[in-house]
Amino acid sequence: MIYDALLGDPAVDEHLSDDAHVDAMLQVEEALARAQATLGLIPESAADVITDSTREDEYDLDSLAAGAAKAGNLAIPLVQALTANAARRDPVSARYVHWGATSQDIIDTATVLQLRAAVSLVADSLARAADAAAELAERHATTVMAGRTWLQHATPITFGLKAAGWLAALDRVHERVEFALDDAMFLQFGGASGTLGSYDDRGLELTALLADGLALRQTNIPWHAHRDRLADLACALGVAVGTTGKIARDISLLSQTEVAEAFEPAEEGKGGSSAMPQKRNPVGASVVLAASIRVPGLVATMLAAMPNEHERALGGWQAEWETLPQIVHLAGGAARHTAEMLAGLEIDAERMRANIDLTQGVSLAESASMALAEHIGRFDAHRVIGDASRRAIAEHRPLADVLAEAPDVMKHLSREEIARLLTPGNYLGSSATFIADALAAHATYRDVD
Amino acid sequence: MIYDALLGDPAVDEHLSDDAHVDAMLQVEEALARAQATLGLIPESAADVITDSTREDEYDLDSLAAGAAKAGNLAIPLVQALTANAARRDPVSARYVHWGATSQDIIDTATVLQLRAAVSLVADSLARAADAAAELAERHATTVMAGRTWLQHATPITFGLKAAGWLAALDRVHERVEFALDDAMFLQFGGASGTLGSYDDRGLELTALLADGLALRQTNIPWHAHRDRLADLACALGVAVGTTGKIARDISLLSQTEVAEAFEPAEEGKGGSSAMPQKRNPVGASVVLAASIRVPGLVATMLAAMPNEHERALGGWQAEWETLPQIVHLAGGAARHTAEMLAGLEIDAERMRANIDLTQGVSLAESASMALAEHIGRFDAHRVIGDASRRAIAEHRPLADVLAEAPDVMKHLSREEIARLLTPGNYLGSSATFIADALAAHATYRDVD
Amino acid sequence: MIYDALLGDPAVDEHLSDDAHVDAMLQVEEALARAQATLGLIPESAADVITDSTREDEYDLDSLAAGAAKAGNLAIPLVQALTANAARRDPVSARYVHWGATSQDIIDTATVLQLRAAVSLVADSLARAADAAAELAERHATTVMAGRTWLQHATPITFGLKAAGWLAALDRVHERVEFALDDAMFLQFGGASGTLGSYDDRGLELTALLADGLALRQTNIPWHAHRDRLADLACALGVAVGTTGKIARDISLLSQTEVAEAFEPAEEGKGGSSAMPQKRNPVGASVVLAASIRVPGLVATMLAAMPNEHERALGGWQAEWETLPQIVHLAGGAARHTAEMLAGLEIDAERMRANIDLTQGVSLAESASMALAEHIGRFDAHRVIGDASRRAIAEHRPLADVLAEAPDVMKHLSREEIARLLTPGNYLGSSATFIADALAAHATYRDVD
Amino acid sequence: MIYDALLGDPAVDEHLSDDAHVDAMLQVEEALARAQATLGLIPESAADVITDSTREDEYDLDSLAAGAAKAGNLAIPLVQALTANAARRDPVSARYVHWGATSQDIIDTATVLQLRAAVSLVADSLARAADAAAELAERHATTVMAGRTWLQHATPITFGLKAAGWLAALDRVHERVEFALDDAMFLQFGGASGTLGSYDDRGLELTALLADGLALRQTNIPWHAHRDRLADLACALGVAVGTTGKIARDISLLSQTEVAEAFEPAEEGKGGSSAMPQKRNPVGASVVLAASIRVPGLVATMLAAMPNEHERALGGWQAEWETLPQIVHLAGGAARHTAEMLAGLEIDAERMRANIDLTQGVSLAESASMALAEHIGRFDAHRVIGDASRRAIAEHRPLADVLAEAPDVMKHLSREEIARLLTPGNYLGSSATFIADALAAHATYRDVD
Repeated sequence: MIYDALLGDPAVDEHLSDDAHVDAMLQVEEALARAQATLGLIPESAADVITDSTREDEYDLDSLAAGAAKAGNLAIPLVQALTANAARRDPVSARYVHWGATSQDIIDTATVLQLRAAVSLVADSLARAADAAAELAERHATTVMAGRTWLQHATPITFGLKAAGWLAALDRVHERVEFALDDAMFLQFGGASGTLGSYDDRGLELTALLADGLALRQTNIPWHAHRDRLADLACALGVAVGTTGKIARDISLLSQTEVAEAFEPAEEGKGGSSAMPQKRNPVGASVVLAASIRVPGLVATMLAAMPNEHERALGGWQAEWETLPQIVHLAGGAARHTAEMLAGLEIDAERMRANIDLTQGVSLAESASMALAEHIGRFDAHRVIGDASRRAIAEHRPLADVLAEAPDVMKHLSREEIARLLTPGNYLGSSATFIADALAAHATYRDVD
Repeated sequence: MIYDALLGDPAVDEHLSDDAHVDAMLQVEEALARAQATLGLIPESAADVITDSTREDEYDLDSLAAGAAKAGNLAIPLVQALTANAARRDPVSARYVHWGATSQDIIDTATVLQLRAAVSLVADSLARAADAAAELAERHATTVMAGRTWLQHATPITFGLKAAGWLAALDRVHERVEFALDDAMFLQFGGASGTLGSYDDRGLELTALLADGLALRQTNIPWHAHRDRLADLACALGVAVGTTGKIARDISLLSQTEVAEAFEPAEEGKGGSSAMPQKRNPVGASVVLAASIRVPGLVATMLAAMPNEHERALGGWQAEWETLPQIVHLAGGAARHTAEMLAGLEIDAERMRANIDLTQGVSLAESASMALAEHIGRFDAHRVIGDASRRAIAEHRPLADVLAEAPDVMKHLSREEIARLLTPGNYLGSSATFIADALAAHATYRDVD
Repeated sequence: MIYDALLGDPAVDEHLSDDAHVDAMLQVEEALARAQATLGLIPESAADVITDSTREDEYDLDSLAAGAAKAGNLAIPLVQALTANAARRDPVSARYVHWGATSQDIIDTATVLQLRAAVSLVADSLARAADAAAELAERHATTVMAGRTWLQHATPITFGLKAAGWLAALDRVHERVEFALDDAMFLQFGGASGTLGSYDDRGLELTALLADGLALRQTNIPWHAHRDRLADLACALGVAVGTTGKIARDISLLSQTEVAEAFEPAEEGKGGSSAMPQKRNPVGASVVLAASIRVPGLVATMLAAMPNEHERALGGWQAEWETLPQIVHLAGGAARHTAEMLAGLEIDAERMRANIDLTQGVSLAESASMALAEHIGRFDAHRVIGDASRRAIAEHRPLADVLAEAPDVMKHLSREEIARLLTPGNYLGSSATFIADALAAHATYRDVD
Repeated sequence: MIYDALLGDPAVDEHLSDDAHVDAMLQVEEALARAQATLGLIPESAADVITDSTREDEYDLDSLAAGAAKAGNLAIPLVQALTANAARRDPVSARYVHWGATSQDIIDTATVLQLRAAVSLVADSLARAADAAAELAERHATTVMAGRTWLQHATPITFGLKAAGWLAALDRVHERVEFALDDAMFLQFGGASGTLGSYDDRGLELTALLADGLALRQTNIPWHAHRDRLADLACALGVAVGTTGKIARDISLLSQTEVAEAFEPAEEGKGGSSAMPQKRNPVGASVVLAASIRVPGLVATMLAAMPNEHERALGGWQAEWETLPQIVHLAGGAARHTAEMLAGLEIDAERMRANIDLTQGVSLAESASMALAEHIGRFDAHRVIGDASRRAIAEHRPLADVLAEAPDVMKHLSREEIARLLTPGNYLGSSATFIADALAAHATYRDVD
């Protein structure tokens, strides 16, 4: 699709392509034949022929697509094609293709293999993003900026604290994605109704060997109609995308013309406008935010698809086929762009400091209020300082000047004290410790990871 | 994508491909140049060169994709390519490519053109499905079958009534889709900030001409950041898919092995199982149900994307790019499969009649209850007949026999009366009129449509 | 619920309460009895007793809730309570309560009655919001402000144009809500399986009279399992909420500390912070944006619930019970807050003008580029002006000064011409016409409406 | 709400009520005062007065709701009321209410406390459901029934295997819910911008003590704008509801009139119909299925709300307030009903066996096909047996009889062998082991848990 390169991560998407899907299915058929030969269920020579037949470029996506359109899934035409290819080599060996398996065994296991390759790379991007956030947190531990709540200036923070918040969240979602991925790495193998009926009493031997051959876990019971592990992985990716969306939203707001505190890395030709020559659009943020708008609906689809009928579903399973890869695709793009944005983020520390001064001390009203509260109580102090703040705003004057005219205040606080209270760098509380903690936790996590 | 042929409608999808998107964008650029030449905004010769440059196969999707990955949208690399192609013909003319337009003007208008072609075909499939439902309703107006509520047998209906319900719903969703499509057929043209600033006072003249050239409506104000028309179309398609999902669910339930009353049309090789040789899986129903699971999340995405920032959005617009075409694609598939299922639906009227008898009259308990109620009141009758019904079920006896032993009942109703009351064909109420009404309404609607 | 007064509109919510639901159901039972008496299906005296029994405060919500918990829906315990209340008056009349109806007939029709009352008020709020937007559009038709795309300054617009965009969208969603509401005003009446079986051949007479009594349309076929009309209404409300979300997002961005161009109306004690005395949080915008985040998922639920099984559903119908009222509730709150925000919106026109100057002419680069393009072509002009713009930004100098040093530019454009080109008020294109059109369309629409 | 008792679990809902929310907030304010007194930040006597003031029934929900409607959140009016109540006891102590905290600290921490109480109970219901599934799996380990795929009969399974599948899934979702709950048990405490600025360098001491007092984990950095832990918990509940939906769907399909293999536990007055006296509607399944339709959209809302602006959000946070409790409420109801359904599920083993015979051996076609494949290859065997199966179906004859006429088959298989192959109990593969494994895993899990 023409927007894949923009919205996704080519490295991730490589594992989500039609080719990759067919390859993974052939890989499962091959591993099945090998395992069956080892157990003597089919001749060793048949496994060789099947192996040869899976390794070549004899599979035409268009005819497979046409076959799927008739059969209702992709495994049926692929097994037919594999059987035909094997038969050209040796008709007798061709008899043993897909021996005792059901379509969903192949498709689900192939999907798991693709997820292993693709989601690992998404996780890597999240880790890279976390590393970049860590560097920002460390570098800007004392870069004072306006805190903003409800899109209004609040008490000051440091940019390092904001980055540390991103960092801690990225580490958390990275851990959840890796956990959910690992938890989903189960072989699907149960045959028509999930009993392994076609293998008599040798089913579990075969399953063990097959799982081993594909380096997957052996499930103790087929999960054809129980999709919780995949839904859980979808959720973990959804939460990760939500976190990247939070970061992208912050960056997009910081890079507004009037705010101008942080910018996506510049790159020749990036983010231009076909109309306005000066524009440098925040392309990365747009991609990540778009993903954070799209993925929730796709995760909901995975959940809505869960009530599968009986042993294998009518509709619910089919609804997953394109939905889960799309989630991985969008998560891949969101994670990649987040990593790139954070790695090259341009910070204007002076502008950060200057923006605080726009409110002439009013954003530090709480600082004055808390100090005054020790004398007249939180409630009255809140009112007194609130009135002064509103006056300072209305009259476009520094809060300190307005306070200097308030007898209620001056009775308890000196001008010097007020000046100290209204200095942003003096009201950062535990910011430094929070940053240090997040960095330490990240270092530990990355060591273990 | 490999599942497109199964899940979609090739005729619809043709208008949703990357190629079709690029073609539509080039069509807009050409119409723009033509309109500008007519107004004397650019030389007529330039419009000729631009027209020539849009008509050839010089556009490589891969390099456009790579360009979009950098620029953040597809119009920028396409305009560059178009300009380069024009420049090879005549460098001076190339200056007038995309004159005064903005990327979103081109992309949105191209999308509208694609929607016109694609959604019309979806509507056609819905109309075909309605026609097929009408035929079923007419043919089976007196084919008695069990009504089913909460998945339990209820009082009898006719299959014609069920089909008439489908018919009426299909006509309604067809009308809504056509209405919403028509309502979305607006040119997008506003330039950078939606003011047509680059055309001074000639903007509206140009817009009128351009809209005319593309056979679109001229909007009185650009809708770059107001996406309600597209969201509304997405909704109409979503409701249509929900209706097809209802029909597919009914069919899938009717074709269960134990019910066996209706079946998707058989077709050589369709709906096979790779494991079980006898299987004829309801492929059509699976596709439609999968669509009805997927589309709601995609419609939610369209709605969630609506709060666009200011004059053109950061994230919300981008979230639509693939989402809306996917909705059309899935609606196309759902509508096509519904039309095919209904056109070839195999009905086993005998089995329908036989299944009613499974409950030995109990599903007609209401009939007896209503008759008895005239004598002893609805509440008591409900209790008396309820008790008898439960006994009939527990003892596997016909309800008529159990009632014959109930003095409360026999005091008021004769055996003959009970037999008449428990005859399914005697308890169909207004079914025939409902069917006739739906057929008449359909005939009228199709005449007008 | 404790947040209802904040998130909703009390006038709307009054029609969505448990009390209102029970009242509406009783109203349906009464109208049913009256219609049946008129037709002679039940004694006139019974209808009188039933009417009396519905009119009193004898219905205890807690015991109805407990009854519903057992019965699976609310109609069953309510009919029991109504029957008991009628029986206390006259046991014989009590026999005729709910004569031949099914639970879903009552619940659905009651829902339709509630929607009529509630959604009309939502539409009224949308109309009030549109009126307020119209006033803003008119008053600020020439108030120049920065256009903003991708959250970056773009070419200038007027605030009137922005308000006209809101206005046109509000009118559109108002129309769609009213249309969808009207389209949903159908009686539900079909009995157990939707055949009106219990009324023999008198069902349609009764239905006509009942519909008339409730001032609802008579459906030609029951819609127990076809929920498209309600889904469509949910969608119309969803699109309306999306539009209010767009407006709220604009306002919230405009009221950022650094932008400070527009503010929600101030009100004593509104939008305070428990920590920061000076804060005036944009409460209205927060409510509207929260609604625009929540409603898409709820609309998706309505769509996902559509594939109802057979004649009456297992799960899908039940999923609507609370979902649809919640959508109306949230839409009511979003529409009310939007109307209030727009009616009292404080505009700082000076700040709007001042913010444009932040970029020292760069946001008008397109204006210069278009003028230059007439001499050297769009492509080269785009490049030349783009370079100059980037230099102006980097060196914090006015674009005019940088252009004055560019021979490529000065060859074609004079300093005076550049000054004119970079004056925001000279580059508003068709803004004034767009505003006038939107105002005229609004006036016409409101006249007709 | 009137449907709470039906759709929810009263024990869970008790912790989600408005009362419970206010109580939890007061509990946080009390713990805050206590911790501050311990550290000497406020006088011990003030903490006593505040404690007293939180313990009484002086809080009127209606006036708090009205206050929230103005202030934009619930903490502001509650802190005002608490301060007023404290002031009536001791005006000086009242000064120290909510000392240095921000509204969101209180609301979020209160939410976490409520989740701890409520979600634990949801998990308990899931565990009870798992226990009941385990008992069914054990009791019916050899109860043969039709496997069903795509809603068609497939090779046989045992009901024990189906129950074991439910069991394994219930154990998995139980574990995930408990994990995600535990992971969310973090104190929220950061003050206005998340720096603990108002506590100077004592913030972390206070946080530690406060976390301790509430038995919550101390977060190393406030999570005002990072909602991943709550989103993750919402997801875990969403996946759990999906699993209950799968179970409910199975039960609802098994209890269809034509299938009649399993039934929800009967209870006097449960699941009646207001129209049809004999009906016993599957109320539990309807509630669970409705939840599985509703929760996905609500989970999507939690994800869509994640991109919070800066230090505290405008819209995203507010969107969670009612959404997360609703998810817990619906999950509580779904888990409770699932536990009840499974604990009392009525199984008709004879009917299960009888239903297999409906297809007269055809559902065991794979068994014959696999045996024949050893002689003529999978592909040809699939075709031969497939043809025979279709003939058996068309002619309503036993598959064994049709096979007896097929020379291709009889050449390789004897009549006795065919009879053995077509005996359902002989084709159960590893079913018994799967059941045993699931039971063993459950026993181990419950021991540890």
